[in-house]
Amino acid sequence: SSSLCLFSSSFYSTSSSSLCLSSSSSSLCLSSSSSSLSSLCLTFFFTCLASASASTPGGEEPNGAGHLMDFLDEPFPDVGTYEDFHTIDWLREKSRDTDRHRKITSKSKESMWELIKSLLDAWSGWVVMLLIGLLSGTLAGVIDLAVDWMTDLKEGVCLSAFWYSHEQCCWTSNQTTFDDRDKCPEWQKWAELMTGTSEGAGAYLLNYLLYVLWALLFSFLAVSLVRVFAPYACGSGIPEIKTILSGFIIRGYLGKWTLLIKTVTLVLAVSSGLSLGKEGPLVHVACCCGNLFCSLFSKYSKNEGKRREVLSAAAAAGVSVAFGAPIGGVLFSLEEVSYYFPLKTLWRSFFAALVAAFTLRSINPFGNSRLVLFYVEYHTPWYMAELVPFILLGVFGGLWGALFIRANIAWCRRRKTTRLGRYPVLEVVGVAGVTALLAFPNPYTRRSTSELISELFNDCGALESSQLCDYVNSPNMSRPLDDIPDRPAGPGVYTALWQLALALVFKVVVTVFTFGMKIPSGLFIPSMAVGAIAGRMVGIAVEQTAYHHHDWIIFRNWCRPGADCVTPGLYAMVGAAACLGGVTRMTVSLVVIMFELTGGLEYIVPLMAAAVTSKWVADAFGKEGIYESHIQLNGYPYLDVRDEFSHRTLAADVMRPRRSEPPLAVLTQDADSVEEVEALIKGTDYNGFPVVVSRESERLIGFVGRRDLTLAVKTARQKQEGVVSSSLVFFTEDPPPLPDDPPPPLKLRRILNLSPFTVTDHTPMETVVDIFRKLGLRQCLVTRSGRLLGIITKKDVLRHMAQMMDQDPESIMFN
Amino acid sequence: SSSLCLFSSSFYSTSSSSLCLSSSSSSLCLSSSSSSLSSLCLTFFFTCLASASASTPGGEEPNGAGHLMDFLDEPFPDVGTYEDFHTIDWLREKSRDTDRHRKITSKSKESMWELIKSLLDAWSGWVVMLLIGLLSGTLAGVIDLAVDWMTDLKEGVCLSAFWYSHEQCCWTSNQTTFDDRDKCPEWQKWAELMTGTSEGAGAYLLNYLLYVLWALLFSFLAVSLVRVFAPYACGSGIPEIKTILSGFIIRGYLGKWTLLIKTVTLVLAVSSGLSLGKEGPLVHVACCCGNLFCSLFSKYSKNEGKRREVLSAAAAAGVSVAFGAPIGGVLFSLEEVSYYFPLKTLWRSFFAALVAAFTLRSINPFGNSRLVLFYVEYHTPWYMAELVPFILLGVFGGLWGALFIRANIAWCRRRKTTRLGRYPVLEVVGVAGVTALLAFPNPYTRRSTSELISELFNDCGALESSQLCDYVNSPNMSRPLDDIPDRPAGPGVYTALWQLALALVFKVVVTVFTFGMKIPSGLFIPSMAVGAIAGRMVGIAVEQTAYHHHDWIIFRNWCRPGADCVTPGLYAMVGAAACLGGVTRMTVSLVVIMFELTGGLEYIVPLMAAAVTSKWVADAFGKEGIYESHIQLNGYPYLDVRDEFSHRTLAADVMRPRRSEPPLAVLTQDADSVEEVEALIKGTDYNGFPVVVSRESERLIGFVGRRDLTLAVKTARQKQEGVVSSSLVFFTEDPPPLPDDPPPPLKLRRILNLSPFTVTDHTPMETVVDIFRKLGLRQCLVTRSGRLLGIITKKDVLRHMAQMMDQDPESIMFN
Repeated sequence: SSSLCLFSSSFYSTSSSSLCLSSSSSSLCLSSSSSSLSSLCLTFFFTCLASASASTPGGEEPNGAGHLMDFLDEPFPDVGTYEDFHTIDWLREKSRDTDRHRKITSKSKESMWELIKSLLDAWSGWVVMLLIGLLSGTLAGVIDLAVDWMTDLKEGVCLSAFWYSHEQCCWTSNQTTFDDRDKCPEWQKWAELMTGTSEGAGAYLLNYLLYVLWALLFSFLAVSLVRVFAPYACGSGIPEIKTILSGFIIRGYLGKWTLLIKTVTLVLAVSSGLSLGKEGPLVHVACCCGNLFCSLFSKYSKNEGKRREVLSAAAAAGVSVAFGAPIGGVLFSLEEVSYYFPLKTLWRSFFAALVAAFTLRSINPFGNSRLVLFYVEYHTPWYMAELVPFILLGVFGGLWGALFIRANIAWCRRRKTTRLGRYPVLEVVGVAGVTALLAFPNPYTRRSTSELISELFNDCGALESSQLCDYVNSPNMSRPLDDIPDRPAGPGVYTALWQLALALVFKVVVTVFTFGMKIPSGLFIPSMAVGAIAGRMVGIAVEQTAYHHHDWIIFRNWCRPGADCVTPGLYAMVGAAACLGGVTRMTVSLVVIMFELTGGLEYIVPLMAAAVTSKWVADAFGKEGIYESHIQLNGYPYLDVRDEFSHRTLAADVMRPRRSEPPLAVLTQDADSVEEVEALIKGTDYNGFPVVVSRESERLIGFVGRRDLTLAVKTARQKQEGVVSSSLVFFTEDPPPLPDDPPPPLKLRRILNLSPFTVTDHTPMETVVDIFRKLGLRQCLVTRSGRLLGIITKKDVLRHMAQMMDQDPESIMFN
Repeated sequence: SSSLCLFSSSFYSTSSSSLCLSSSSSSLCLSSSSSSLSSLCLTFFFTCLASASASTPGGEEPNGAGHLMDFLDEPFPDVGTYEDFHTIDWLREKSRDTDRHRKITSKSKESMWELIKSLLDAWSGWVVMLLIGLLSGTLAGVIDLAVDWMTDLKEGVCLSAFWYSHEQCCWTSNQTTFDDRDKCPEWQKWAELMTGTSEGAGAYLLNYLLYVLWALLFSFLAVSLVRVFAPYACGSGIPEIKTILSGFIIRGYLGKWTLLIKTVTLVLAVSSGLSLGKEGPLVHVACCCGNLFCSLFSKYSKNEGKRREVLSAAAAAGVSVAFGAPIGGVLFSLEEVSYYFPLKTLWRSFFAALVAAFTLRSINPFGNSRLVLFYVEYHTPWYMAELVPFILLGVFGGLWGALFIRANIAWCRRRKTTRLGRYPVLEVVGVAGVTALLAFPNPYTRRSTSELISELFNDCGALESSQLCDYVNSPNMSRPLDDIPDRPAGPGVYTALWQLALALVFKVVVTVFTFGMKIPSGLFIPSMAVGAIAGRMVGIAVEQTAYHHHDWIIFRNWCRPGADCVTPGLYAMVGAAACLGGVTRMTVSLVVIMFELTGGLEYIVPLMAAAVTSKWVADAFGKEGIYESHIQLNGYPYLDVRDEFSHRTLAADVMRPRRSEPPLAVLTQDADSVEEVEALIKGTDYNGFPVVVSRESERLIGFVGRRDLTLAVKTARQKQEGVVSSSLVFFTEDPPPLPDDPPPPLKLRRILNLSPFTVTDHTPMETVVDIFRKLGLRQCLVTRSGRLLGIITKKDVLRHMAQMMDQDPESIMFN
């Protein structure tokens, strides 16, 4: 699971950075963290690159520690930054950005140059969006082309140019006829190339063998690269991105290195034929692009809140290129991924999504100058009575979604807790091998999943040569291109139905084991495939029933003989939407993505009916979608905006310290010495300390962060003359009255947060949760009639919520 | 302006309800508030209906005051309701809803019946959405049909059935040929009907006269109905709906009566030929529907927060039917109108918008079974070089938007402050008369504005017979239907250009005076018309330049002779988007609405370029769109989510009391008598009072609302034995130590809000503004180290923001 992946990486980055701490980013240093067999041969590269990646973390850029410090203006280099795996304080980030903005505005009146700089600053947001759009569109195009080529490489090779995919090969050949577009002499299967013949059991077995071997090679390469270079590149990335966007620091998760490796391994993983898609990982890739361009502008690189605005827009660009659906992408980011989504981000997301989509279109990887992944065009409307099968598909999708989530989470938990998790390379290669072995014999699983979905979505036009369109044509048909009446199914359709049923079972089972392995793996395509197969089967069943029993009362009104009344492709699309909805619990963005695929408002009602039914059914078995489930499995501190918290607890029940615990660790405004402060820091591991007037009155005056306090005391000890252990620390405006001949006191008011957030002990927890969510707090102090009683952190809130929902509160692991 | 309309209504409802207070809702009572001439004849109806409407306010439903009170559970009937023109407290509404939900959930385990009730309660949201969709779709359809008929009534009448519009009349006639679709013997112009001839100056003048007379009649009827029955029905309604959604009470603004009158007068106003549209008012109508159905479910009718969720969705349904763009409608509600838009509302809005759109489609008012208002289909792509004129159109749209807002606000302010405002009927009739007089001679202003826009958007196909499509055809042309090459313009096009230029000037001037009058008036259609005219003119200019100078370097690459390279209709559409964007400052929703009109992703880039340019240009001249400007003009307490507040002020600078003012009016927890409390209520007009431990320590324990306190004291005086003036009022758990033989004390802890929101005096105002926005607070207490210092209300925040932006802080009028 991603959590293991996270931990191993956390270990890895700690060890490598501790060894390389003093070295410059390009120097070499030894590392002892390479444990897996496959990484041994690559240790040299690894260590170089690890140090390079350690100097460019995804989270923030620490300043150099050597330069002169001004004790009044910006006291310590790291004040205001966060540690890895910590939660950010949105309110503070926002007010820091306002300060910055104010400074630039006031400066801009001074000179022309400053005015230009302020204009550039104001435009930098749009520039970042443009760059994100361009890069993520380009990467998506490159990935599409590479996947196409490598998927076909498993079957054969193009003799005229080995870098051509099957389609490109036959497209450039002059010996291709229109009827047999995918057959040409330049494209040779491996058996044909090696033995000269493509017939017979021997050739079949040879092709089979090479198909499996390629799959093993690709999957081995993918998992090794991930293990060695960028452990964060595994999984779909969406659970982690949701957590990061909600205000959590995972350094390196969106780094350059992750970007590169995820792009490469995504191609390998998809080409290996595993039951996974590229859509989710593309969101991660786009977010890495966003983070990369953030580092160009200090406005974004130095402010975690602003950075997250850019990342939300990048997520929209990612979905936009994954499906060719810019509006759907924006809505996906809004509905599924983002936490803080102001209107300005909405506009910018839209811009980024558009640029990305058009960049992709100009690369034209599908060769049809279409923007969308699955372009479909239906010629018949749908009828009211068809809502019944559509809703049934919705029920199926919901059931599948709920079942899949349970099974997958159970398997991931098992992987996490048992010895299985220790052999990720073996696991991936094993699953890839089994998948390839089982997939080859069935034509519907042998091809890539996107091609399968594409075929299932398509209406059987007159030119369609697929087995699924093997209908018995009436001899006296005039065959207009668009309007073909319902016909009886031929033997090919029945064979296809059997094969589809087997493919359905195969996909359902294998996807449970695939999602969560240590390679980039998206869930959109496998879910859609399951739904599309089920939908197409239902569609054909309805079509044949309507043809053979058009006198039944339900068909009589709208399905006369010779009319084209049922479109099985539409059923496939509805089924795909239902299954995707069941797994992810998206509704609006899902329907909009599907609507952008078909481009017609006509079919919104069937899609909506299926999506809503599927959500309701799946919600009945468990409130959480797959991403939330994985977040919970990994114990990320994610406060879901959608959860309704309705228990009757008060802030007093949740705050620390509890009744049995020792009192709250506080500082006084002018009565503690440096020694006492250092003892407090050493003796506790809290992230910050409230400052009170005196321990007796317990009147709160502010809050000081642990990191800032540690740095301040340390710096003062080193730089400020006369500060000794017995020096008084004071947070007031004026120094306290001192005894005769005192050591010089240490004034720390500048690191004191004078506006800590407080609630009373009688505040209902539902209000507290609301405040944490909406203001993005990190902690909140609890008072009663002006006296400080305790503190509630985000972790406390999450633990309390877990407890109220009968989950293990200890599963929340980070601060 | 709407504010005047609001005030007159406020006066009206106060007076009528005070007179009718004791009467039942159907009884008659006299009213003295009818002041305008036109209302005299209708006083009888007016008074009946006023009392009916007074009993069904838009805001909330007061319970009866007579029933037995339980002092422990729900102490006073009106506790928790708001007064008219007051701000709601979102946090409190939310926690009330959670309480309600908790009660239902715990009850549902008791019996089957309670379980069913709880399920019904859970589903009521979707039911309300369904009903809103059905009703607003139906109303939109009826309005469309009625407007069609009445607009044509100004020109002539259908002899076969007088209730047919021109198009319907000729559609049902068998003597219509395909080429002359709008000519048939059944349809007669007034002159033809009266004098038997349709030729000559006499007939023209007679038609002219009747056109003006009908316009005067319609506008007089419209304004009189609004004046007499529902003063709130005037204007577009969007500024007020934005304010209501942000948490403000305007009773009756969304009442049944407003719904009815707005629907009727909207038809009259649009038919009168005034330069206004029906799109904005349709949002108001849909919100009235939403409010109407809220009253069916206590979940929504008794909770102002939940009610606003429904209203947000209703606004989406309104735009959905106005343009036939469900996704655009949802985004409009999200981007432009709504304040609190949780994900649940997103899903429900989408549902309501879909139901509304499909209801409208099944009514099929446009007779083409299209969903959208302006259906267009272009056959040529756009070229990179065309971005230059598109961006110029964006600049034009932005300039027009900024100019329009300034001029319109200046005129509305003049209307508000001078004698002009006292003669609304005369004003409307006058403007309608002038509009009709000037509009008739020009064929492009004589017809309805939607028809004009529709024609301007359309590409000149081979079948088009309009003057705008009078091109010189090359004789040897094969005339394929879709792909007509660029041709030189004929004399008709040049005539049309002149007429369009005149129409542009006319529209620009007359719209400034029309928007803000006391009739329902939308701004979308006039704005789009201005943009579409300008765009079409630019488009024709570019087309002719390209035709005549196709060897110029900018045309050489993409515009060879004989190619169809420029689509003037697309320019019209881009211009319309630019002007609409300049006025309303929408971006994403605007582009999505336009995209839903054309149904092709192809043209998103031109639209986006124009919309963004227009927004930038317009923003350079003033940050506020037309709706925000009207909100400000009327002094509504609207806290814009989009405003960036970046001034360096602290909570201490904004809070009351100021340094020179008397100290804060507070209550103590156990030291004030009933008499003192009553004196405090009488002597101040604050909305609530903080409760402190003692006046010396100033430690805050809670906050009590004025309304609740007044009611509690009054009720106790009446019902509770022994409570006299000298009785002590206490808010603590236990009664305070009392002297011997005391009067029984009055315990008021149950009305005390024990979790008032506090900030420290050092909190930056930007954080305070953020908290007010995100949590929807009504007031916030300011403390320093546990001592209460002052209070900040939403009005204080708004005043401070106005002051910081160099506006008159006294313009904020309501609490």
